[in-house]
Amino acid sequence: MRARNKPWADDYLRDNKDIVELSPSDYKNKWEDVFNNNNPVHLEIGTGKGQFIVGMSEQNNDINFIGIELAKSILVSAVQKVLDSNQKNIRLINEDANNLTELFGENEVDKIYLNFSDPWPKARHAKRRLTYKSFLDQYRHILKDDGELVLKTDNRGLFEYSLVSFSQYGLILDEVLLDLHEVNDPTNVMTEYEEKFSNKGQNIYRCKARFPK
Amino acid sequence: MRARNKPWADDYLRDNKDIVELSPSDYKNKWEDVFNNNNPVHLEIGTGKGQFIVGMSEQNNDINFIGIELAKSILVSAVQKVLDSNQKNIRLINEDANNLTELFGENEVDKIYLNFSDPWPKARHAKRRLTYKSFLDQYRHILKDDGELVLKTDNRGLFEYSLVSFSQYGLILDEVLLDLHEVNDPTNVMTEYEEKFSNKGQNIYRCKARFPK
Repeated sequence: MRARNKPWADDYLRDNKDIVELSPSDYKNKWEDVFNNNNPVHLEIGTGKGQFIVGMSEQNNDINFIGIELAKSILVSAVQKVLDSNQKNIRLINEDANNLTELFGENEVDKIYLNFSDPWPKARHAKRRLTYKSFLDQYRHILKDDGELVLKTDNRGLFEYSLVSFSQYGLILDEVLLDLHEVNDPTNVMTEYEEKFSNKGQNIYRCKARFPK
Repeated sequence: MRARNKPWADDYLRDNKDIVELSPSDYKNKWEDVFNNNNPVHLEIGTGKGQFIVGMSEQNNDINFIGIELAKSILVSAVQKVLDSNQKNIRLINEDANNLTELFGENEVDKIYLNFSDPWPKARHAKRRLTYKSFLDQYRHILKDDGELVLKTDNRGLFEYSLVSFSQYGLILDEVLLDLHEVNDPTNVMTEYEEKFSNKGQNIYRCKARFPK
């Protein structure tokens, strides 16, 4: 997701340090302390403007949500949404998805959401896709046994690639939907992208996978 | 596939016993003898009117093709196509896909094609889908190690179900395509159904999977 540079973003994130964890690696293995409870932890990688994570947190007050977003100028919109929602079960992190094992301990996460990730369509960029095996290594490390990986995208190429990548890694598919919105799933919270592409008549794909024990 | 009853079908199949194996279980573990060579054996389950198997056999003279079709009134059309093609590397069987292990020995088959199989959309009919686990048991038995299972369909529900069924069984996906005809695959031979549905603008799905060793 691209956005105009916002020179005030740094200050804004610092000013909201009850929502934005500025030194997230300090909390590796200690996210319970951040939330002051031992509820399950769900992680969204690429939180964007926060519509998904806020919607999910409202539906699930007994789950702790952590959103990671690399672009500060976008993350500020998510912070605003969290403030507006008054939800206490969300934290945001301004980090790269390459560093997950520095931010979370082994088995510390119950579920990972990959929403409308950058498809990196060129074959030579495959390593950057969030479903490439080096990322799966990280997810396996931080996810609990039977922890779930949920992928949503409108990008056919990314979805095809991800199903194969998951399978070759040994992940087990529990759900594959090629037209998510055709199914009536009242628990589905739409991201900003999802709303936009779905309104254009584009199919939304979803799959749920878990690592073998 | 439905077709009008053809009372002459029985006689016609008997008259063409160089193409139609009338007692196929006699050849279990002996399909080499039928073809008089030890070329790889590819099996199509639900051969229909034969356009796929004949096209494949023309592209691959060094492979032996066996087509199974339960409906006699449809199989006669496939026989006619084989006769017209003059291909010697095809045999047809009028059998149910439930009996594969009576027809083929362990590791006797190199590849299985499931083309536009009946989707059996009702959940209570899931056991009849050719990608249900009882069928996968049979495929695993008759397929060589690293033997491939190739599924083509226009039916979204069957495709979604099959990907999950394969994965839960332990099959490894090597390819998933959600719009086969968008990819330029010169080896793809269209079935009659594929041609019809594709002309209507319907996506054709394909996946390739193999059993773990």
